[in-house]
Amino acid sequence: MKIHHIGIAVESLSVAIPAFEKILGRAPDSQETVADQKVRVAVFNLSGSRIELLEATSPESPIAKFISKRGQGIHHLTLSVQGLAGRLGELEQGGIRLIDREPRAGAGGEQIAFLHPSSTTGVLIELVEEEGE
Amino acid sequence: MKIHHIGIAVESLSVAIPAFEKILGRAPDSQETVADQKVRVAVFNLSGSRIELLEATSPESPIAKFISKRGQGIHHLTLSVQGLAGRLGELEQGGIRLIDREPRAGAGGEQIAFLHPSSTTGVLIELVEEEGE
Repeated sequence: MKIHHIGIAVESLSVAIPAFEKILGRAPDSQETVADQKVRVAVFNLSGSRIELLEATSPESPIAKFISKRGQGIHHLTLSVQGLAGRLGELEQGGIRLIDREPRAGAGGEQIAFLHPSSTTGVLIELVEEEGE
Repeated sequence: MKIHHIGIAVESLSVAIPAFEKILGRAPDSQETVADQKVRVAVFNLSGSRIELLEATSPESPIAKFISKRGQGIHHLTLSVQGLAGRLGELEQGGIRLIDREPRAGAGGEQIAFLHPSSTTGVLIELVEEEGE
C-alpha cells in the first residue's frame, strides 16, 4: 500500500500553482478540467506519488463546499491498493463506513472508491486500484 | 522530491489506530511520545512514505489547537528534499514565508523546516532533508 496522491483544495489555481512551483521546483506536469467533479486540477508528479491542486469550477463543486466549511487545505488522501473490490467488502465488514460500496471509474478511468470520513478520524480517504493489477 | 509522510491530527489514538489498522491492513510500526511537540505518534510505514497519527498530550499541543480550530484531519504534509538549507534560502527569496528559516533537528534527529501556510494555500508543509544526503 502506498500514497497515490494528495488532493489540495485551493481557491485559485492562478495563486496556488506559482506557490507550488516554487516549493516543488518546477511547473505542473498536467492540468485538466474534470467536468463531473466540477474541478480544475493541476498535477505535480513526485517520486512515487503526486500532488493535485483542485480548484472548483462551480459553487456546487465538492471543493467549493469544502473550502466554505474548512478553508483551503488538504482535501483528500488517496492510497493505492491491490484488489479494491475485495478490500471494500472487508472494510465494510470491519465497520468502516463507505461512500462507494463498489469500485467506480475515477476521472482518469482507474477504479476508485471513497471511504466516509466519519470512520477515518475526519480524513477523506480515496482508494485506487493499483496500476498494473 | 517525494512525499515523506502525512501527519493526521486525531482526538484519540485509541479510536484512530483501530480504524487505520482496518484500512491499512496491519498494526502501526511504532508508537512514541514526542515530549517537546506534546504529541503521541503512531506510525504506519507504507511503500516509500508513511502515515503518522498525532494525538495531543496537552491542550497546549499544536495538535490540540489544530483540532479545536478545524477538527480532526490532515495536519501537515512532509516532503523530502535534497539540500534543505539551500532550498530554504531559495524559497525565501522567491517570496515563500518560512516558519523555520534554518533547518532544525526534528523528533527523529533529521533536519527539518516548516513553511508558513499563508504561502502554501493553507497547507502546513514540512521539508525534511532526504535520508542518505
